[in-house]
Amino acid sequence: MNNINDLSNSVIFPKGKKIADGTFTGDAWAEMLVPMSFLYNCSIANVTFAPGSRNHWHKHPGGQILLITGGAGFYQEQGKPARAIKAGDVVQVPVNVSHWHGAAPDSWLVHLSITTNPARGNLQWQQPVTDAEYPGHPG
Amino acid sequence: MNNINDLSNSVIFPKGKKIADGTFTGDAWAEMLVPMSFLYNCSIANVTFAPGSRNHWHKHPGGQILLITGGAGFYQEQGKPARAIKAGDVVQVPVNVSHWHGAAPDSWLVHLSITTNPARGNLQWQQPVTDAEYPGHPG
Repeated sequence: MNNINDLSNSVIFPKGKKIADGTFTGDAWAEMLVPMSFLYNCSIANVTFAPGSRNHWHKHPGGQILLITGGAGFYQEQGKPARAIKAGDVVQVPVNVSHWHGAAPDSWLVHLSITTNPARGNLQWQQPVTDAEYPGHPG
Repeated sequence: MNNINDLSNSVIFPKGKKIADGTFTGDAWAEMLVPMSFLYNCSIANVTFAPGSRNHWHKHPGGQILLITGGAGFYQEQGKPARAIKAGDVVQVPVNVSHWHGAAPDSWLVHLSITTNPARGNLQWQQPVTDAEYPGHPG
């Protein structure tokens, strides 16, 4: 972990539990800050990615907003190049567009996710991001 | 500013412009991170309060969620005691309940505000929080 800003305790909000449902490549953790609520029409989670980790391609029927609170990584929509993201950035994920997000190979990444419009349906998981798709992969 | 953790540059997200519409007591700044959007059914702002500053009593017809990202302060709903809030706390503001939030007398406060359900109507401003209502006021 030389030269990597250590965000292994997350940033500001709790790190939560390790994600172990097979929807991520590498190690990541999530804490629900606001459970899915029809009152607020959203849920809010804090997600912490170890260097190199990323979620699988997926879609949100109701959209999602990412507020990057620490580190650096990537966000990619299907058919577009991966975009570098870092603390202070905001990503508006369009409805029903396949995409993924995760840490850079040499950095932790922490973001808040606001998942909107729960009545439009649940997140739809797709295939893993391959090493060939992942930017900066050494192999 | 002795012994006060200086958050005058805000935390992670841009500080934005000084709020000058007469709805706050003291100095505060706001940056819209996501403008009000019917697509996402919310807006998101970063709000930075100087020590001692607070907004007026107000209500949200569609509710609001506060994610405290820095410093310490207070949140109070009408008819209840003021509650201390600090970085890492989450406040779910109920629909149409009069409340206010702001910094402690001796601390900056920074929070993200997720204002939900815009179709239910705009924020309704009420009277200022008096010095007698504000916790820790020396007078």
